[in-house]
Amino acid sequence: MRRLAVQVTLVDRRNFHLFQPLLYQVATGWLSPANIASTLRAVLRHQKNAKVLLAEVTDIDTANHKVIFAGGALYYDTLLVGTGSSHHYFGHEDWQKLAPGLKTLEDAIEMRRRVFSAFESAEREIDQATIRDWLTFVIVGGGPTGVELAGALADIANQTLTHDFRSIDPSATRILLLEASDRILSTYPEDLASKAQSFLKNLGVSVQTRTAVTELRPGEVAVKRGETPEVIPCQTVLWAAGVRASHLGAALARGGVATLDRGGRVIVQDDFSIANHPEIFVIGDLACNTPPGGKPLPGIAPVAQQAGRYVAQVIGNRLDGKTTRPFKYRDRGSMAIIGRAIAVADLGGIHLSGFTAWLAWLFVHLMQIVEFENRILVLVQWGWFYFRRSRAARLITGDKFES
Amino acid sequence: MRRLAVQVTLVDRRNFHLFQPLLYQVATGWLSPANIASTLRAVLRHQKNAKVLLAEVTDIDTANHKVIFAGGALYYDTLLVGTGSSHHYFGHEDWQKLAPGLKTLEDAIEMRRRVFSAFESAEREIDQATIRDWLTFVIVGGGPTGVELAGALADIANQTLTHDFRSIDPSATRILLLEASDRILSTYPEDLASKAQSFLKNLGVSVQTRTAVTELRPGEVAVKRGETPEVIPCQTVLWAAGVRASHLGAALARGGVATLDRGGRVIVQDDFSIANHPEIFVIGDLACNTPPGGKPLPGIAPVAQQAGRYVAQVIGNRLDGKTTRPFKYRDRGSMAIIGRAIAVADLGGIHLSGFTAWLAWLFVHLMQIVEFENRILVLVQWGWFYFRRSRAARLITGDKFES
Repeated sequence: MRRLAVQVTLVDRRNFHLFQPLLYQVATGWLSPANIASTLRAVLRHQKNAKVLLAEVTDIDTANHKVIFAGGALYYDTLLVGTGSSHHYFGHEDWQKLAPGLKTLEDAIEMRRRVFSAFESAEREIDQATIRDWLTFVIVGGGPTGVELAGALADIANQTLTHDFRSIDPSATRILLLEASDRILSTYPEDLASKAQSFLKNLGVSVQTRTAVTELRPGEVAVKRGETPEVIPCQTVLWAAGVRASHLGAALARGGVATLDRGGRVIVQDDFSIANHPEIFVIGDLACNTPPGGKPLPGIAPVAQQAGRYVAQVIGNRLDGKTTRPFKYRDRGSMAIIGRAIAVADLGGIHLSGFTAWLAWLFVHLMQIVEFENRILVLVQWGWFYFRRSRAARLITGDKFES
Repeated sequence: MRRLAVQVTLVDRRNFHLFQPLLYQVATGWLSPANIASTLRAVLRHQKNAKVLLAEVTDIDTANHKVIFAGGALYYDTLLVGTGSSHHYFGHEDWQKLAPGLKTLEDAIEMRRRVFSAFESAEREIDQATIRDWLTFVIVGGGPTGVELAGALADIANQTLTHDFRSIDPSATRILLLEASDRILSTYPEDLASKAQSFLKNLGVSVQTRTAVTELRPGEVAVKRGETPEVIPCQTVLWAAGVRASHLGAALARGGVATLDRGGRVIVQDDFSIANHPEIFVIGDLACNTPPGGKPLPGIAPVAQQAGRYVAQVIGNRLDGKTTRPFKYRDRGSMAIIGRAIAVADLGGIHLSGFTAWLAWLFVHLMQIVEFENRILVLVQWGWFYFRRSRAARLITGDKFES
């Protein structure tokens, strides 16, 4: 909205924009947090009509056109809400401690701590069963995040750590990818999903479909495999299963202003505004936009980016008294990285797998990183990983290591 | 000790080696934590006679040649202790919360959070006095760390944030560097210290010597300027004043095995062993080694590095039944960076200041970074800073921002 005659205030509880698709690379010690985060003020530095306010919005007063945060409030003419989603533990919120998810930088650092601490704990152990439990990693959820985490863990076990330990053999690591439905990557074409599954198998990942988690306890995961209950002893569980829409959806729904779908997402009209509230737009993972005769648009970055540009157009046209052509999502495809030099990609009908898909993945994601400096930093680290199998950011920080 | 017929176990509570001289660059959003930390296992990967144990040593049983940690112990023939030092608040340990020091990566991330949050809080304020307090930064201690922090803060205020805010003017930031003695950089030659002081003045830093902190309270610092008491209102205090030797010094001193100096450092003989305990060496900041007729060697990285190599020689020679020539510290000089393209350097009698000193500083410190990958990453970030005044790693993470 740089060229529009509007005043923009960006309110965020964090001082940076996070490029979430690469979060799993922070969690697995490949990139540093700053590489995938761009300071909001740096991004908007030269956009004179925009200011940034660091605050956590707690409520929205739609009647009075007011956004409320701790210690203050802000009036709006037009409101855009894009507060996304967080993890969903399907009613078992206590599982979060046992199985961290991957939505924030802090999540990624915690996951990284658990992954690399597990190998350290195994190295200190003598009891073979305990060592096996420390070297067992369970990933819950076979979507893109789960698949990418499983592949990265396999790379760590088979390549990065090869010469690092003296007692344990990291390649004995067991990685279990659990998926409740009957296949992984359910949003991908079936041939690519089955390619991905066989790539994972080659990397040593045990992909277990039709396997639902019924209970998490310290040191074990209870599952139902079809109808058969089973207990998997393991020390590290990573959660990649469900997302829940931000609580600001509920704030908008109060008093009947907005309607939510089953996942708590705000049902929006074609132009991403709320019915009868043309001044409120919802975009990103928090929005449920169902094109006429189609399925709801998926909660992925390209939809959010295109929606952002589209809503800016709508606002600009309103100022000029013009209408805007309906939004049309341009699906440029989807891709998931599986291991060093292996990926699957669905590029609008063209299905790639293996090395070419990996190159396409690298290029597309590199271009998505906002700051040029970070692009170079990421490129160096990806290059190092490719040629040297290096993961330099394997720091165990935050809570101290405790065996 | 790679080539010696010995078995080495490196016990550390962290899984990485930290290059402390660059810690202030993490604290000021210039570098990422992983850029200055090298995973111990990666460094020792191919040294077959070395293994790494992640554990926090709590005590040393010198009578039984045993190192004790939570959940285990380790017997030694020869022991090297190099657990360094932490902050010293001169009996006011409660000040730590009000004025974090800079010894660990977590410290640096906390300092970074406070620095960049302060500008955010100022931007949200209306009251002019409160804004001034948020834009006042007090740095306690005029040694190299204090000087480098003060210079980096001035760069942030005058250059990095220039276009970032809409309400406040970051160049109105007040940076106070307090030093109790009568000059900053007391270990440097006098001409360089006074050069450094005038560089800092040009950057807008108020250097206040003969100014001792008498009390820290939330929102203010009480000082004594000569004999005159004064209270400085400010929201951010950074501690760069004192170091205290690691508690393992006291563990060694118990039962009269070792003697400590006033700072808690272990008094060692010429070859860094403890008197009457040739099997125990202490090196680094924890050691107090006074050459015949000289002053104690300073607690800086070059001394520690040379001591490490020397002790390895001593151990090798013992195995061969040979003696070792006395240790001789080769003082290659000292350098401190003050701002973008400004530093002071004392290179064994040659005094440099300004741009040439800065280039020398960059080269020397770049070469000290252990991993080649990190050297490239750091070089890119330094170059970006030089040409674009960029600080990409300005993330506010950890505790959430609260105004």
